[in-house]
Amino acid sequence: MRVGPSQDEIRRQNLGALLRHVHVHGATSRAELTTALGLNRSTIGALTADLAGAGLVSEGTPKETGRAGRPSLVVRPESARVYAYAYSIEVDRLRAARVGLGGEVLDRRDLDRPRDLDAGETVPMLAGALKQMRERVPPESICVGAGVAVCGMVRKADGLVRLGPTTGWVDEPIGAALAVELGVELPVTVGNVADVAAFAEHARGVAAGCDNVIYLYGDVGVGAGIIAGGRRLTGHGGYGGEVGHMVVVRDGTPCECGSRGCWETQIGEYGLLRAAGRSDARGRDALLAVFDAADRGDARAQTAVRHAGDWLGFGVANLVNIFNPEMVIFGGTMRDLYLAAAAQVRSRLNETGLPACLEHVRLRTPKLGDDAALIGAAELAFERLLADPLDAA
Amino acid sequence: MRVGPSQDEIRRQNLGALLRHVHVHGATSRAELTTALGLNRSTIGALTADLAGAGLVSEGTPKETGRAGRPSLVVRPESARVYAYAYSIEVDRLRAARVGLGGEVLDRRDLDRPRDLDAGETVPMLAGALKQMRERVPPESICVGAGVAVCGMVRKADGLVRLGPTTGWVDEPIGAALAVELGVELPVTVGNVADVAAFAEHARGVAAGCDNVIYLYGDVGVGAGIIAGGRRLTGHGGYGGEVGHMVVVRDGTPCECGSRGCWETQIGEYGLLRAAGRSDARGRDALLAVFDAADRGDARAQTAVRHAGDWLGFGVANLVNIFNPEMVIFGGTMRDLYLAAAAQVRSRLNETGLPACLEHVRLRTPKLGDDAALIGAAELAFERLLADPLDAA
Repeated sequence: MRVGPSQDEIRRQNLGALLRHVHVHGATSRAELTTALGLNRSTIGALTADLAGAGLVSEGTPKETGRAGRPSLVVRPESARVYAYAYSIEVDRLRAARVGLGGEVLDRRDLDRPRDLDAGETVPMLAGALKQMRERVPPESICVGAGVAVCGMVRKADGLVRLGPTTGWVDEPIGAALAVELGVELPVTVGNVADVAAFAEHARGVAAGCDNVIYLYGDVGVGAGIIAGGRRLTGHGGYGGEVGHMVVVRDGTPCECGSRGCWETQIGEYGLLRAAGRSDARGRDALLAVFDAADRGDARAQTAVRHAGDWLGFGVANLVNIFNPEMVIFGGTMRDLYLAAAAQVRSRLNETGLPACLEHVRLRTPKLGDDAALIGAAELAFERLLADPLDAA
Repeated sequence: MRVGPSQDEIRRQNLGALLRHVHVHGATSRAELTTALGLNRSTIGALTADLAGAGLVSEGTPKETGRAGRPSLVVRPESARVYAYAYSIEVDRLRAARVGLGGEVLDRRDLDRPRDLDAGETVPMLAGALKQMRERVPPESICVGAGVAVCGMVRKADGLVRLGPTTGWVDEPIGAALAVELGVELPVTVGNVADVAAFAEHARGVAAGCDNVIYLYGDVGVGAGIIAGGRRLTGHGGYGGEVGHMVVVRDGTPCECGSRGCWETQIGEYGLLRAAGRSDARGRDALLAVFDAADRGDARAQTAVRHAGDWLGFGVANLVNIFNPEMVIFGGTMRDLYLAAAAQVRSRLNETGLPACLEHVRLRTPKLGDDAALIGAAELAFERLLADPLDAA
């Protein structure tokens, strides 16, 4: 443990803190930065000059304020020039984007993904999307790396996808394969889709400022990205947050993971379509059709939605008792289910949650919508830049 | 956010880091401190002199090493002079101790606690134990405060016991009441017993060096102290870790908390005694009698223990899937149950846990035994000293 930081370390930390501030909050005046970072004006000026010299920020005069006196210069992230590539590998689609510093999606490509597509076939499709986007990158841009969100359990150490119960992938080195396909000397960071979506909503979404958050994400299965004490909960190997495989019915319905009675057998795509008498249907559109039928008075669809909503509330209550979060966010198909069955969710949650754990918890839908996974994947790549702006750029 | 620390802050951090090192690791040579803290020899010398001047550490020559050359001076915590008071409020007993810097129990008092004892009657008993211990404190000792471990949900902000399902306490300001009874100008910090026991096992017990730990603690009910990414998981209000109230049987047996089918209805004292046909019995001795009867071949006791062991493995598997810990520790009555039914625990865990989450998880019993709660309570008080040694002493 090195306790006393060196001058170099302090400067690097300060550069990172300033760049992070404008990355998260957008254009900020020097005066506001002085207050927010607790540094004096001349230090802010010197840090800004260094970051501007590296092409990461620019300075300019603010819009007319109407106030007298010389306005404080405004520091802006170079969102159009500094970017990361972001991927989201979902069960039924692949998405690729170029995301600028500051979190703006500059370019994007969406592709359908057949459910039986293996990892070896998936990677070239992602590389192709990148190739198309690369042709449109303005000159003198700075790429800081690539981030990948994937529905599956991702090993923290090297980004290996250990298991994707809903894709059937086992031990797929997605990050390494993509790095080869991209053919560039850029780091590729891989994360679970629920984890990175939580990261994005915590950094710049509905959970900004919340230190204890559960982001429940449904695709075909269900997982959670968890923020505890302001930090991402990863667990020992990176597999933390597999709440969809919390067993809620002992010796219940077989699950894709090999166990039985997992929570996602009740609230995931397969369980809900089965309960609605539509076992042959697949995909989010099929789920939305069930919610729509329930809305229009279809009794079987209503029963299925109420049943799944009750189980959603049941599992959320368990998580609320275990984590005592201040916010639960429902993303992906969990957003659809929550909106269709909010009464059942709240009723079961209130019945089963401990009163002290319930009193400050807010239930929310994502602010970044489906883009949370892409923006979060880009954040994985930006993290490296923010840790050491001048060395990484 | 202040990014650049001042010289004063750096010195305070260094003092705290040195004192924490000898508090956790015991007597340490100056040479080892230089390496461990990443500071040069003259800084270590100056910091040690400051701490010795405040009476917190002493320096001396080490025991004979057999090596040539002048030995490096050894820095020792002043364990006999610097101390905290520690309390553990359990369902059937009250414990009080005086714990020295370094974690050594210097004096202790144990008292029986009738189950219907209310908070107003409990506090004077604890104050009486402290009065007895205080008479034996050597002159020129330094008391840094008091810490309290309590079986119940403790509000982080002020130590209010919101709910003790097994004591029947609701909204009891234990910390404030104790501060009045103690009649001293010392801070009193209150924490949940599982949380503080986990803290102690993480600081100086079986989980030292582990960053992701679940300490499962059973008294009459069941709770967990959780270490995630090296830090205590508290949740928003301080109520995190109420794993005993994870519902495992929907609409199951009524629980003391007001809900139904909570995990502790299957593995806690009441459930296990009921399953063994001993609903009228109470207390840890009654539980131990069931384990003993099972050992001696009593069929009903064996069935009850196997049933509870299976449920213990079931819940641990859920927590392993959610947290991906590297260690699960079984403390209090959960230690007894785990040791009596380890085969059932492991069998169900292996059946239900995700392979990636299982591959590095170790199941352990506490190193500090039942003293973990007392030592952890003292750690709550020492935390203040370690944050700012010269100001707090």
